[in-house]
Amino acid sequence: MAQSIFETVDDLYEKMVKTRRYLHQYPELSFQETETAKYIADTYESLGIPYEKNIGGNGVIATIEGGKPGRTVALRADFDALPIQEQNEHLPFHSKNEGVMHACGHDGHTAELLGLAEAVWQHKEDLPGTLVLLHQHAEEFTPGGAKPIIDSGALNHVEAVFGTHLWTNTDYGTIEVSKGAFMAGADAFEITIKGKGGHGAQPHQTKDAIVIASDVVASLQQIVSRRIDPLRTAVVTVGTIEAGTAFNVIADSAKLTGTVRTFETDVQNTIREEMERIVKGIAEAAGAEYEFTYNKGYPPVINHEKEASLILEEAGEADPSLITKEVEPSMAGEDFAYYLEEKPGAFYFTGAKIPDHAYPHHHPKFDFDERAMLHGAKTLLQAYFSYQRQPR
Amino acid sequence: MAQSIFETVDDLYEKMVKTRRYLHQYPELSFQETETAKYIADTYESLGIPYEKNIGGNGVIATIEGGKPGRTVALRADFDALPIQEQNEHLPFHSKNEGVMHACGHDGHTAELLGLAEAVWQHKEDLPGTLVLLHQHAEEFTPGGAKPIIDSGALNHVEAVFGTHLWTNTDYGTIEVSKGAFMAGADAFEITIKGKGGHGAQPHQTKDAIVIASDVVASLQQIVSRRIDPLRTAVVTVGTIEAGTAFNVIADSAKLTGTVRTFETDVQNTIREEMERIVKGIAEAAGAEYEFTYNKGYPPVINHEKEASLILEEAGEADPSLITKEVEPSMAGEDFAYYLEEKPGAFYFTGAKIPDHAYPHHHPKFDFDERAMLHGAKTLLQAYFSYQRQPR
Amino acid sequence: MAQSIFETVDDLYEKMVKTRRYLHQYPELSFQETETAKYIADTYESLGIPYEKNIGGNGVIATIEGGKPGRTVALRADFDALPIQEQNEHLPFHSKNEGVMHACGHDGHTAELLGLAEAVWQHKEDLPGTLVLLHQHAEEFTPGGAKPIIDSGALNHVEAVFGTHLWTNTDYGTIEVSKGAFMAGADAFEITIKGKGGHGAQPHQTKDAIVIASDVVASLQQIVSRRIDPLRTAVVTVGTIEAGTAFNVIADSAKLTGTVRTFETDVQNTIREEMERIVKGIAEAAGAEYEFTYNKGYPPVINHEKEASLILEEAGEADPSLITKEVEPSMAGEDFAYYLEEKPGAFYFTGAKIPDHAYPHHHPKFDFDERAMLHGAKTLLQAYFSYQRQPR
Amino acid sequence: MAQSIFETVDDLYEKMVKTRRYLHQYPELSFQETETAKYIADTYESLGIPYEKNIGGNGVIATIEGGKPGRTVALRADFDALPIQEQNEHLPFHSKNEGVMHACGHDGHTAELLGLAEAVWQHKEDLPGTLVLLHQHAEEFTPGGAKPIIDSGALNHVEAVFGTHLWTNTDYGTIEVSKGAFMAGADAFEITIKGKGGHGAQPHQTKDAIVIASDVVASLQQIVSRRIDPLRTAVVTVGTIEAGTAFNVIADSAKLTGTVRTFETDVQNTIREEMERIVKGIAEAAGAEYEFTYNKGYPPVINHEKEASLILEEAGEADPSLITKEVEPSMAGEDFAYYLEEKPGAFYFTGAKIPDHAYPHHHPKFDFDERAMLHGAKTLLQAYFSYQRQPR
Repeated sequence: MAQSIFETVDDLYEKMVKTRRYLHQYPELSFQETETAKYIADTYESLGIPYEKNIGGNGVIATIEGGKPGRTVALRADFDALPIQEQNEHLPFHSKNEGVMHACGHDGHTAELLGLAEAVWQHKEDLPGTLVLLHQHAEEFTPGGAKPIIDSGALNHVEAVFGTHLWTNTDYGTIEVSKGAFMAGADAFEITIKGKGGHGAQPHQTKDAIVIASDVVASLQQIVSRRIDPLRTAVVTVGTIEAGTAFNVIADSAKLTGTVRTFETDVQNTIREEMERIVKGIAEAAGAEYEFTYNKGYPPVINHEKEASLILEEAGEADPSLITKEVEPSMAGEDFAYYLEEKPGAFYFTGAKIPDHAYPHHHPKFDFDERAMLHGAKTLLQAYFSYQRQPR
Repeated sequence: MAQSIFETVDDLYEKMVKTRRYLHQYPELSFQETETAKYIADTYESLGIPYEKNIGGNGVIATIEGGKPGRTVALRADFDALPIQEQNEHLPFHSKNEGVMHACGHDGHTAELLGLAEAVWQHKEDLPGTLVLLHQHAEEFTPGGAKPIIDSGALNHVEAVFGTHLWTNTDYGTIEVSKGAFMAGADAFEITIKGKGGHGAQPHQTKDAIVIASDVVASLQQIVSRRIDPLRTAVVTVGTIEAGTAFNVIADSAKLTGTVRTFETDVQNTIREEMERIVKGIAEAAGAEYEFTYNKGYPPVINHEKEASLILEEAGEADPSLITKEVEPSMAGEDFAYYLEEKPGAFYFTGAKIPDHAYPHHHPKFDFDERAMLHGAKTLLQAYFSYQRQPR
Repeated sequence: MAQSIFETVDDLYEKMVKTRRYLHQYPELSFQETETAKYIADTYESLGIPYEKNIGGNGVIATIEGGKPGRTVALRADFDALPIQEQNEHLPFHSKNEGVMHACGHDGHTAELLGLAEAVWQHKEDLPGTLVLLHQHAEEFTPGGAKPIIDSGALNHVEAVFGTHLWTNTDYGTIEVSKGAFMAGADAFEITIKGKGGHGAQPHQTKDAIVIASDVVASLQQIVSRRIDPLRTAVVTVGTIEAGTAFNVIADSAKLTGTVRTFETDVQNTIREEMERIVKGIAEAAGAEYEFTYNKGYPPVINHEKEASLILEEAGEADPSLITKEVEPSMAGEDFAYYLEEKPGAFYFTGAKIPDHAYPHHHPKFDFDERAMLHGAKTLLQAYFSYQRQPR
Repeated sequence: MAQSIFETVDDLYEKMVKTRRYLHQYPELSFQETETAKYIADTYESLGIPYEKNIGGNGVIATIEGGKPGRTVALRADFDALPIQEQNEHLPFHSKNEGVMHACGHDGHTAELLGLAEAVWQHKEDLPGTLVLLHQHAEEFTPGGAKPIIDSGALNHVEAVFGTHLWTNTDYGTIEVSKGAFMAGADAFEITIKGKGGHGAQPHQTKDAIVIASDVVASLQQIVSRRIDPLRTAVVTVGTIEAGTAFNVIADSAKLTGTVRTFETDVQNTIREEMERIVKGIAEAAGAEYEFTYNKGYPPVINHEKEASLILEEAGEADPSLITKEVEPSMAGEDFAYYLEEKPGAFYFTGAKIPDHAYPHHHPKFDFDERAMLHGAKTLLQAYFSYQRQPR
């Protein structure tokens, strides 16, 4: 029976591409993705698949009860975009929303899951168990959409949850997963330097917030280089800096935002303490004030061993051309972590690199090999089937 | 006759305050100050004083021919505002234009000159010579309004030009001037660091533009501290920095803008060269690219000795309470410099500090003692009269 | 038989302490440790154990042929000291050599091996195989003593080699080892900034080497924080900086030396390239010159799996109180690496922390729990016996 | 009479060169210049000129009472050298004292004054007034020799004091002086960063003093660039940095020494405060400790107006080829300042640049045009004569 569903998925490929390209043109920022949610809901509406919307925010959940008994398994796709101005003018379907871009592949995730749903719906009589199609909003922006979706009770009857990320660091045709730690914990911080503004020609009457903020950025490099055990893994990134209103006015304040990635709580705590120590010391060295906010974000994605093994060992059944690899964890973060804190499951990468156009995720020129959507859809479906075979 | 005009100026004080407060509420950015220009033109229209508008842009020039023979002297007031969000909520007349503020006193300059014009108009029969009332747009933003106004031929028949700046670094009741160098040359620069963006958790695949830009800011401090003769005067200020679009995305580029102040051409040239050397070296140290644009801006304001002496020796005649001081030059810049390259004249400061609320120019809490507008108006008028007494 | 040798080792404990304390008082720098070598040779001479000296420099190798057939196994101890001024005035046996200190425990290693040798010598009739006692000079200073000792042919007939380090990061009573990577590759670098000196009051006539060198130190932090995959391990340490001759003279040059630690060749190569990129860029940003020398040093210590397993599984037989642990690799480097490139073997840590006086290796207050020397001697001996039981 | 003395000075030129070259080979550090003092004393001894030695330390003072009545005027020459390794191998008379060098011309000053003394002695019958020949030790190292010499009472009967510095920034043939401020106040500081040392591969267990010290050096640049009025003059120079004992050991402390130059007390005080603010803030940002010592040094050299005018107007009488210029003050410091706090007088520069070998003072390749010694000797003598003509 699985085989015929996989074939139906193949048949829906062009539709998936169409869906993906449509969504790519109309990306929406985290927590503001109402049109995308409506698009998803409308699709289920038109297919006749039962669904609920506004789950924990903009989330949409569809459910297909199979004609045969079995386990209840959720498959998740996220659908928000990023505040990046796309630089893929060569793509006829590039973003039409100024300053917003699907630079992480969530458009593809959504297309995958909708295609998978349509295929399963056609074969629902033969389907063992219950398939929960979990379309999650707001993965890119802490506190994320996974938590409120869980809090809404959406996983209450779910026995396992699987998800995948189209991944352009990974070759097309390859599935990557790890048992245990798979993706990093991702925190967010904000630093505001409060100096004293003034005329650009009279620095001695001011406390130049730009100079102070620059010193902070430089000194933050020492956290990873000097203050964390070299055998531990840590990233401290300042993602934005903004200060000043005019070229000839000394800025009275500067704002930095950024992210911290770790796999361990003690490393996370040390970074938080050292960050504040640095900001405080540098501000005081200049006689300035500061504000420091540290938001613990997504915990690390820790795959469950048994479910990760299912991916590793059986994902290939979905498509004989697939190579499956056990890999080191990624520094990226994902709020899929929350599902795995609640339920058994696994998260994995579906290789989608375009060799001639290989840009990292979150880059203005990001794009992925659309054929990988078939790999994503079919391996998720395979995970669903594999889990059905598990003893209770 | 001067005495009775001074009294009329005094009588117009409340009107000047009203004018200033109105303009303060509706500040406009350089080169966009069309409403302000209209306000000025309308005032002349209603008074019946002949004027021309759209001079070299948004400039407005009114002319009062006196009933008696004499010299043609221009008095100048500028009227643009700054991209600063005002923080003077205690002032009932604070800015109503979001992010724009009269933080340099140009509202007061305009009120002064309009008041002075109205007073002179009432006494025009007795007036020797011809008074040119020069309302200049765009002083705050290079290339400034002075140059196109001059290019329009506005000064062709003018024999001397005077101007003053309400100055909150100077005590109320004090007039400050210098013979020779009075205000600095003011240049503008833009630096763009072109790194390589990417996922906030994968720094090794990027060239982090924020880290590079911070190093540039830090190293630029060495120009004044190490590379310019300590006996020479120089300022290098980075006024704005902007980079990054999201806290978890490594910025691919960073933009800095700033100003350089000098009194001497060789110092100016050295700074320009050292800036580029620093930007280039730091960018290369990170394997990044850069763009560097240096716009030579206003030249230094060099007062003419004889005309500066008139201010120094005779400004007090306008009001016996005034103290007149010869001072060191200021680091601030002014496109009044261009007038002094064309015609004899002098520029000076009219003390306007509020002791309990003493903020530097361009500060979000900037305010000045409104009574100083009388000092400004009367000393400009006095300069006009003093110059009439000069032999040709 | 092993049991009675272990008891003899126990009996020699006080002598080992005496030896260690004597050596601690007379530390010698790498490649200059002639008195220490003489002390070792004299000890063998007085015991009647055959030995050779001046092996590959100051190395001393003694050999005990057992009365029974067996394998030839080398046990290694290093004996050089560091250029550190000891700050352990409370120790009656603190260093008498100004600026030189056994701050890494090599005095203990030597005492261990001499004690072990004396014990084995007493039981040589019952000994299976041949014990090679390898006293190595110059472990602390690249290119180290291991390489020339190997080049001298000293290991030609040796079948396996074991060594241990007294380790104050590890609790007394614990043996730590890993299969595979155990200690990092350790490189050395020198950077010379060539600026232009001059009078301390005339910076603009100079290129201040201290300011430039400081920028280099700051920017080198970015290698680990930004330019190496966060999942890879790397350390870049500047260990010394020296510049300037007088407080009122601007330094014309500055010299930095330091070390790099990695486990992988591509990381090592990236660091080397990025270091030069940084030094070059920063120097050019200041119009200065530079010299950069990078000396690839000890490769990583990669334990052989079978021999490491012997330690892990059987070291405890030497003393039932010992706990044996498989641990993550250490960032420290060791030229023991060279022996393991030639012969099977393993290197491990013998816990020697003093809880009330816990200072890291190379610290001026470094000291270790002398009782751990018994653990070191007995586990090395056990490794010798374990290896005898191995099939050829 | 003056004319014939000037001619005698000319005749002694070769002897002056010989003296200078001898002293150049045997430079001695400040407060240790006993052989130089002995050389000076021996010269006076052999000439028969009365002198006293060990004045306020190593000072030597000779006195020539003229045959005619007049004023008592002191002429001063300093004679200490600097801790610099000379790099003038092309000079046959380069320094024979390792690491010590006459890199500031004090060898020339001494030769000048000895030559002048010998010439005057030959004409003493005709000499009006009393000539005090003041050979001062320890000018290069705070607290300097001038103060103890004054405290010894050496100036009690002196009515005026003159001195000059051979100056390689000034063309040969030019005399430079200013009325009022002529040279800067020169302070000295020491900063010790107290981090925590450790193994070069375990930065997280340390507080890396070299990284902290580098941040301090970088941030100190902001004092001049951002915290002092650009119209005021200030220099903050770090002259030496020293930290670390081995390339693979993280330094536990770092020591910086340097100098501050100012002309005004409030600027001096601001710098001192901002320095400590910076050192404290940076140390705290790293969790480290610090020591900061600031030694107020020589006050600025403030020439007395009348005496400076004598140099400006009459120095040329000594040699018609001389050009005399009124110049801006120099940032260099001089403890001649103390004499001018006690007595009328002036200090000036005697141009000594070698166009093909123009290195700043305190540079390892410093050298001066020896012919300028004649200008120095003759203008000092002229100052003596000029002062004789002054009314009491």
